[in-house]
Amino acid sequence: MMILIGQYDSPFVRRVGIAMTLYDIKFEHRPWSTFGDADKLRAYNPLGRVPTLVLNDGTSLLESAAILDYLDSQVPEEKVLMPRHEPDRHRALRRASLACGLADKAVSMFYELRMHTDPSQVWLKRCQEQIAGVIATLEAERAKDKLHDWLKTDFGHADIAEVCALRFLGEAHPQMFDMAKYPALARNAAMLEALTVFKQISQPIIPPK
Amino acid sequence: MMILIGQYDSPFVRRVGIAMTLYDIKFEHRPWSTFGDADKLRAYNPLGRVPTLVLNDGTSLLESAAILDYLDSQVPEEKVLMPRHEPDRHRALRRASLACGLADKAVSMFYELRMHTDPSQVWLKRCQEQIAGVIATLEAERAKDKLHDWLKTDFGHADIAEVCALRFLGEAHPQMFDMAKYPALARNAAMLEALTVFKQISQPIIPPK
Repeated sequence: MMILIGQYDSPFVRRVGIAMTLYDIKFEHRPWSTFGDADKLRAYNPLGRVPTLVLNDGTSLLESAAILDYLDSQVPEEKVLMPRHEPDRHRALRRASLACGLADKAVSMFYELRMHTDPSQVWLKRCQEQIAGVIATLEAERAKDKLHDWLKTDFGHADIAEVCALRFLGEAHPQMFDMAKYPALARNAAMLEALTVFKQISQPIIPPK
Repeated sequence: MMILIGQYDSPFVRRVGIAMTLYDIKFEHRPWSTFGDADKLRAYNPLGRVPTLVLNDGTSLLESAAILDYLDSQVPEEKVLMPRHEPDRHRALRRASLACGLADKAVSMFYELRMHTDPSQVWLKRCQEQIAGVIATLEAERAKDKLHDWLKTDFGHADIAEVCALRFLGEAHPQMFDMAKYPALARNAAMLEALTVFKQISQPIIPPK
């Protein structure tokens, strides 16, 4: 059985856990912390990051996009959460990249604040602007696409990434963005977070010790 | 014509530039800085990161792996730098993820040192250990595979990522790792850096102002 390492408070671990659950791929979940369980984790992934997916032959995959690329190859066309053909594929990957980039900057701010008694205001401001730019872009596209009509039954990796990124942003930096200003994103996130798989594969943020 | 935004001192921009050159895909190169040219860049990519690839229809792709995934769809099977089928594909993506993770941590250290008068020693030590772990893993695999026999004519995205990551690491943190301790990696890097495309698509690091 495959092993998924990492806690679901990470938007990157969570998007993989949600995809595996939707794919009906059984896995053992080891909710290790990148700091507290660093030694155990590095035995599988020298980079010491999560998610790490250990395949049945012992190979460890890393980076959520690369892990999902592999998992996508294990399911039939009608089930896959990322289009296999162009131009749909690069459009979906673009949206997933924006969502993951947003999550990445939210994680970066999280550590910037926790690792420094005197955090860099230049860096924090830059991250905040990057996040604001992505949210505005995604909101504009969501509002135009009226995705809420079909999202509940026909969503993919990009939509999952967006929901996971927004959840992390809201928990890690609760006062930073008022999601009421982004009604299309907020509505889509609420719709997906209400699904069983999103409730099941979730965990409030546990700050590193 | 496609537009590639970003400077080649970024290992992520460089791997895309090298792939596009090897694919004979003509592109306009805009060597914008993520800090100095932030406003221009954000008109194309709200995340403000490089590489950004602007397609002919105006769509902007981001994240080197997602950009390469698209470019790979534009070339025939015999030319593609990433295997299209499993299990070769996930093995190559795994190596590319390790190399890009290494580069990511080297970039993170670079900014940690430049953005703080009192950088976090916990963070720097952690990054250094992560990089050391990846280098040791890649070296062990390279030494075993004897890749140097065929690397010059049959390399792919993962090999390019590795060479670009090591180049950046060596320039950004020149005293940190003694590559003489990693002879297989050093030999492969030297072999590929000697190729015309690697010389052409390169730039020494220019620190942000």
